[in-house]
Amino acid sequence: MGKVTCDITITADGYSAGHNQSEDRPFGDDGGDGRGDRLHAWFSETAEENKAEIEKITAAKAFIMGRNMFGPVRGAWDRPWNGWWGEDPPYHAPVYVLTHHPREPQPMDGGTTFHFVTDGVESALAHARAAAGDADVAICGGATTVNQFLAAGLIDELRLHISPLTLGAGTRLFDGVPPLRLELVGARAASLVTHVTYRVLT
Amino acid sequence: MGKVTCDITITADGYSAGHNQSEDRPFGDDGGDGRGDRLHAWFSETAEENKAEIEKITAAKAFIMGRNMFGPVRGAWDRPWNGWWGEDPPYHAPVYVLTHHPREPQPMDGGTTFHFVTDGVESALAHARAAAGDADVAICGGATTVNQFLAAGLIDELRLHISPLTLGAGTRLFDGVPPLRLELVGARAASLVTHVTYRVLT
Repeated sequence: MGKVTCDITITADGYSAGHNQSEDRPFGDDGGDGRGDRLHAWFSETAEENKAEIEKITAAKAFIMGRNMFGPVRGAWDRPWNGWWGEDPPYHAPVYVLTHHPREPQPMDGGTTFHFVTDGVESALAHARAAAGDADVAICGGATTVNQFLAAGLIDELRLHISPLTLGAGTRLFDGVPPLRLELVGARAASLVTHVTYRVLT
Repeated sequence: MGKVTCDITITADGYSAGHNQSEDRPFGDDGGDGRGDRLHAWFSETAEENKAEIEKITAAKAFIMGRNMFGPVRGAWDRPWNGWWGEDPPYHAPVYVLTHHPREPQPMDGGTTFHFVTDGVESALAHARAAAGDADVAICGGATTVNQFLAAGLIDELRLHISPLTLGAGTRLFDGVPPLRLELVGARAASLVTHVTYRVLT
C-alpha cells in the first residue's frame, strides 16, 4: 500500500488562503491580487527552480481535494462547472472531491476524472486507495481538508511549501488538529519558497 | 548602525510555548516535560550539528527580552531573583528586559547586565542601540515580545528555528502582527530543526 502524501503551500504564519475568498479571488486576501500571486509565486514564477518539488505534487495515482479546491467558494454549485482546472487538469488520475452535494462523476481530458464523495474523509480515502493500488494517494488541500485528514491521523508525509509572507488571518493549516509529532525528512530553500517535508509520526 | 535581529524557536504550527506555563514548566505544554524538551531538543541534544546557528544567537552586542524570558511567569517578581540564566548568562552584554516593574540593574558574571525597561519597545531599542554602537541588537523573545517588535516594524532579520512538532495552542509567533512581506535569505534542515532566515521588508 502506498503512502498518503499531502502538499500544501502556506505563508510563514501558516495560512493557505486569506479572508474574503470569492470566485474571482479564490485565495482571498493573499498579500497580492487574490489569485494567489504572492502565496503561489514560487509555483507560477519560479517553476523551473522548483521542478523536482512540483513534479512530486502530481506523482500520486489518486487524489483527494476539498470542495473549494474543485469549484467556486460561493454560488453556482448547481450550474454546469467542471472546476478551476480547465479541460486537462494536471492530475491524470481519479480525483475525489469532498462535498455535501451528490453529483455524477466528471471525466476530463488527460485521464482526470472528478468523483464526488459525500460521506467523509475515510470514505474518500478508501475510494482513493482502491484506485491507487500500491501507489501513493495525495491530499491536495485546501487547509480545511488537510486538517481533517491530519486530525484523523491519515496523512503519512506532509510537504509544506512556505512562502515568504504573512497574512495574519485566513484559513490556517493545523487549526483544530491535536498536537502532532513529526519527523523532519528534509528542507530546501529556493528563491521564493522553503520546502519542508515531514513524516507524521503516530 | 547594526541590524535588529531576532532568533526564535517555534513549532511547525508557530508556537514558541504551550499553554499552562509556570515556574516549573516555563514552556508549558511543549510536547514533552514542559522544560522545552521537544521544542528545544535541537538546541539541547544536537548543539554540535547546529553550532553556526547557535553562535549567531548570542553574537549581538545588546539584547532585548520579555519579562517572562527573564524570570518566572507567575509569582515572585519581588523576591531576589536573577533570572533563569544562572550566574554567567550567555549574553556577555547588556540585556534590556521589558517589564512594568522598575528594578535596579542586575550585573552578572561574564559581562551580562540585566537592565529593566518600563516604557516600551521603542525605548528598549533606543537603549540597546546606544549600547551596541555599530553592532547588531538582538530580540531574544518570547513570542509576545517579538510580535510587539514585528508589529512596530523594528526587526530587520528574523531567524526561525522550526522544531518538528505541533502544539495546537499556546503563545504564537505573528499573532496580532499585520501582514508582512519577507525576503527568504536561506534555509537549512538539521536532524531536529529547520532553520529559516527572513529579511523583513518595509
